[in-house]
Amino acid sequence: MSNRILVINPNRNEQVTEAMDRALDPFRGENCPTIDCITLREGPLGIESQSDADAAAPLVYRTVYENESNADAFVIACYSDPGLRAARELTSKPVFGIAEAGLSTAIMMGGRIGVISILENAVERHFSYAKSLSLDSRIVADVPIGLSVAELADEEIVTVKMLDAGYRLRRDFGANVIVLGCAGMARYRQALEEKNGIPVIDPTQAAVAAAVSALRLKISVSR
Amino acid sequence: MSNRILVINPNRNEQVTEAMDRALDPFRGENCPTIDCITLREGPLGIESQSDADAAAPLVYRTVYENESNADAFVIACYSDPGLRAARELTSKPVFGIAEAGLSTAIMMGGRIGVISILENAVERHFSYAKSLSLDSRIVADVPIGLSVAELADEEIVTVKMLDAGYRLRRDFGANVIVLGCAGMARYRQALEEKNGIPVIDPTQAAVAAAVSALRLKISVSR
Amino acid sequence: MSNRILVINPNRNEQVTEAMDRALDPFRGENCPTIDCITLREGPLGIESQSDADAAAPLVYRTVYENESNADAFVIACYSDPGLRAARELTSKPVFGIAEAGLSTAIMMGGRIGVISILENAVERHFSYAKSLSLDSRIVADVPIGLSVAELADEEIVTVKMLDAGYRLRRDFGANVIVLGCAGMARYRQALEEKNGIPVIDPTQAAVAAAVSALRLKISVSR
Amino acid sequence: MSNRILVINPNRNEQVTEAMDRALDPFRGENCPTIDCITLREGPLGIESQSDADAAAPLVYRTVYENESNADAFVIACYSDPGLRAARELTSKPVFGIAEAGLSTAIMMGGRIGVISILENAVERHFSYAKSLSLDSRIVADVPIGLSVAELADEEIVTVKMLDAGYRLRRDFGANVIVLGCAGMARYRQALEEKNGIPVIDPTQAAVAAAVSALRLKISVSR
Amino acid sequence: MSNRILVINPNRNEQVTEAMDRALDPFRGENCPTIDCITLREGPLGIESQSDADAAAPLVYRTVYENESNADAFVIACYSDPGLRAARELTSKPVFGIAEAGLSTAIMMGGRIGVISILENAVERHFSYAKSLSLDSRIVADVPIGLSVAELADEEIVTVKMLDAGYRLRRDFGANVIVLGCAGMARYRQALEEKNGIPVIDPTQAAVAAAVSALRLKISVSR
Amino acid sequence: MSNRILVINPNRNEQVTEAMDRALDPFRGENCPTIDCITLREGPLGIESQSDADAAAPLVYRTVYENESNADAFVIACYSDPGLRAARELTSKPVFGIAEAGLSTAIMMGGRIGVISILENAVERHFSYAKSLSLDSRIVADVPIGLSVAELADEEIVTVKMLDAGYRLRRDFGANVIVLGCAGMARYRQALEEKNGIPVIDPTQAAVAAAVSALRLKISVSR
Repeated sequence: MSNRILVINPNRNEQVTEAMDRALDPFRGENCPTIDCITLREGPLGIESQSDADAAAPLVYRTVYENESNADAFVIACYSDPGLRAARELTSKPVFGIAEAGLSTAIMMGGRIGVISILENAVERHFSYAKSLSLDSRIVADVPIGLSVAELADEEIVTVKMLDAGYRLRRDFGANVIVLGCAGMARYRQALEEKNGIPVIDPTQAAVAAAVSALRLKISVSR
Repeated sequence: MSNRILVINPNRNEQVTEAMDRALDPFRGENCPTIDCITLREGPLGIESQSDADAAAPLVYRTVYENESNADAFVIACYSDPGLRAARELTSKPVFGIAEAGLSTAIMMGGRIGVISILENAVERHFSYAKSLSLDSRIVADVPIGLSVAELADEEIVTVKMLDAGYRLRRDFGANVIVLGCAGMARYRQALEEKNGIPVIDPTQAAVAAAVSALRLKISVSR
Repeated sequence: MSNRILVINPNRNEQVTEAMDRALDPFRGENCPTIDCITLREGPLGIESQSDADAAAPLVYRTVYENESNADAFVIACYSDPGLRAARELTSKPVFGIAEAGLSTAIMMGGRIGVISILENAVERHFSYAKSLSLDSRIVADVPIGLSVAELADEEIVTVKMLDAGYRLRRDFGANVIVLGCAGMARYRQALEEKNGIPVIDPTQAAVAAAVSALRLKISVSR
Repeated sequence: MSNRILVINPNRNEQVTEAMDRALDPFRGENCPTIDCITLREGPLGIESQSDADAAAPLVYRTVYENESNADAFVIACYSDPGLRAARELTSKPVFGIAEAGLSTAIMMGGRIGVISILENAVERHFSYAKSLSLDSRIVADVPIGLSVAELADEEIVTVKMLDAGYRLRRDFGANVIVLGCAGMARYRQALEEKNGIPVIDPTQAAVAAAVSALRLKISVSR
Repeated sequence: MSNRILVINPNRNEQVTEAMDRALDPFRGENCPTIDCITLREGPLGIESQSDADAAAPLVYRTVYENESNADAFVIACYSDPGLRAARELTSKPVFGIAEAGLSTAIMMGGRIGVISILENAVERHFSYAKSLSLDSRIVADVPIGLSVAELADEEIVTVKMLDAGYRLRRDFGANVIVLGCAGMARYRQALEEKNGIPVIDPTQAAVAAAVSALRLKISVSR
Repeated sequence: MSNRILVINPNRNEQVTEAMDRALDPFRGENCPTIDCITLREGPLGIESQSDADAAAPLVYRTVYENESNADAFVIACYSDPGLRAARELTSKPVFGIAEAGLSTAIMMGGRIGVISILENAVERHFSYAKSLSLDSRIVADVPIGLSVAELADEEIVTVKMLDAGYRLRRDFGANVIVLGCAGMARYRQALEEKNGIPVIDPTQAAVAAAVSALRLKISVSR
């Protein structure tokens, strides 16, 4: 298996790209596809609003289009899935969005999904998108931690806020599985799962897992 | 009332802009707001795919942002509502999308809404968007006529196809109100309504009507 | 445009009729349709129960029927929309109900709709009706202020209670648009919007706006 | 058990009242409550439109109110359930509507409910009501036979049309239980069930069964 | 009427069987069907988990199958309805499950249904089942009392906990009808209804009532 | 990675087990978990009814329980997911059901899911289960081919029927992804995908893929 999966971070924050890259190590090894993570240099600093997501979408689908011949599957690593449907129009290679993949994976892990978001204004955007996928009724709550993507690098404060959000999702809303609502939260997955005691899905991992499987199974997606 | 409503056609088809401009004449007159329709020069030829819609979105919200000081309300005149939510983040003036406004208006005109689209691939895009608005369960069918935006100028063939789509919506799906699923269909509204016998909503008219009312009522939308 | 819109207050409270009449002034002027508000002398004192709504319904649709030749559009100004569907059977002129119109308008103003009701028992009635319209999933809460229609005249106490209800809708339920759940609340719209900072819809204004637009556009509703 | 159930036929068609009275014989006998069927003299000839239903509602709830002291449970025998919620406000005795009871009973008889209606215009009215009860998603289709309530007396033609509707519900829509969508169809229940091979619910029987059970169990409904 | 209804308690707790037997006395008398309650000797001690429900299901449907010739209707008296759909495949006699029947009956008693469960883990199981029946949107909450089936025999502590759960359902969630979410709660129905002031449905009574009615009406269920 | 995934075929048809075993080869290789497929000797011949599924469920969850110490993840390879929720109560290792996994995977492959079933009676069972997972609204149709599990071995006739079902799903219902509704259909996946031109999901492959990913990521599922 000498395939290549291209993971696109639509924001231009290299730290986010590096952290997600490390989180994808479990998928690497002999007989495994190559997984390369790239940063969109022209992307917004963080995708923290609908304008950011809208700005990123054309950059993302063009990147997919331009790389069609040198990748076998694509992952769009932003929880707003910017450009996902457009990219699918432009390539016959499989394309995965991390919000769609994170929720689809969570369905198999628990009946009541909780989401942790960065900023308050993400909640309605996430919910509206989940409705468009008909997956909203599985989500019991979406709790924001009130930090920007850039602020996700401060491990101490973020850890506290993520644990608090996880605790509220479990206790106040009965969540039994959590999806991280931002690609930049990857480094906090394990600690949250260990402390909170319910499965935690890093959506970038979920999307890459789906890409790996699609490549193994040679599932055709010529739409 | 000396307000100004800026209607933005996100595609660069001037014929579409001219036809929608004519369709807005009923809202003009003394004591009425000024209604100006503009064409996005850099926009796609027609918005006929998700890529087109994604490409248009940043152009649209930037146009809203740049015109904030010289307009009192905005209408995004494409049935995919590109850039609608982003534009709302960037201005405290009311912004209306024609899909959202067309469906909201149709709710008051009939219990079973039929939509007429241009191309087959619009159907799933429309339905997904209607789900994100929680308005999908009022829509009984979305029938495409199989023509591009540019082809909407050929009145003879379009008229036949629109009447056929309207007839199918009414007879096969029980629609009792129709929403035109493209800003470029404005010129066919009246004929379709007369021949088919059920109300037909031109969504650009619906959105401009909503804008006129919001201005009259001075409804604040500072989000 | 020399059309006439007949606004029917189904309760016999003249104060309510007068207040709604004043609230409709923004729709008046040269080139505007005549808007006349009438009080149903035989109607209940206030529509505060299902029995009141059921008692009003035949009075309303008969009034529409009897006035068919001297009005061009009708508005039923009670948030239970009594007689709305029946009236539509009896005339080919457009008929609008304020609950349907208020919710349809709110859809364009915010993703999360809050409703303010008069009495506790209105909540289930409103919700059941919203379900029949498939609009319930957009409503995040319906908060009653615990006052009868007659008591809505006491501006001091009502203002306090309305502000409190609006605050709860925004803070506890995340509403970003409010619909007044009673025609008698018209006079409090502006203060609530100014103090609460999110758009507030007076449903009678919303329905009259829809009527004005339908007349301008000459939309046929021959069902 | 010396209780009395009052069954109210809201239309003034005595033939309908007589037929439903005969269909209730299985509930009569020693130790059984008295079941009396009455005809509303002032009611419409048949309830064939929303105006008919709205006209009947106040007659129905007043009849319940006036008979509170001489009945222990009430059944409103029209498939539009006119006056049902209002009647429940006016008495602490249990009140049943035949549409609500027919659907609730059908839920236990099959996963896919078909409804047979009289006239085409009943379909949207029925569906809107089922939505208000959150029971619409169990209904696979509502097929009208195109006859008025009065015409239901012509057994030959009605039998043919009912069998045809039942056949379509089963074959085209996969219904595995049928609810008769009009009190006047009672006399055709048995033949339809025998010929069609799936359970057929006469909703008046279903509502009276619910009333009998509530009386046996002394379930309190003081709301 | 010399029919026989066989009520099957799928757990092997004789106390539960005896209590439900007493609760069915209102359905007994001259002209009434015989109602026999049996205990499944090989059943689990209580059905308190999905494993318990899965273990019971084959025992239940085999019992129905083996008793086809000596009963005219069957009731499965466990709120997880184990074996219900399988039993229906194996007999042409009507079979009722108490969860399905309890919810169907509650629909006629109130718009907002509250459920009282035994253990916390029942809540998701119940909700998942209600979704499979499309009845979940009528349920406002499911409150567990934290006791096992065996512990339901301790009347003092159970009474307190049931009253508390009922109070919370009514006050915090606005329930206006309660369904007991366990066959073993039968003996507490009356006290809860009297103290709480809203109707309380014992689902075993509801299912037996449905069986009695089906037998009276000779409704065929040959699937 | 020296983990072991135990795939349980709940029916006793060895041919089905062998075919699914072959279909899992793409997941085997160095650095890959061991994947062992076992046949439940006491299981039904095929799971073709609710009784079959109910009979299999306890066998399945006991097999999971007994193998807890010698497997790291479990897959239940029957499209009714018998014993899935019970098994999850009994082990802290991840357990996947192929229906849940097949649908969750299809969500990422297309907006409109079609299912191919064996027998007609599977359709309602599948739909009811999909509702319990809140995934039903993504499924556009479930088309049965009218063959038993045993008959799936006759490649000639099955191929024809599967292609026909796939064609109908795509053309008549607009499906853009297909899920095979039976573990025994694995050998037909590739041909169907090639001929029909839209992605086809073998649900056993989907569930094993999910298990492989969960093991790689060490996601904890201690519930």
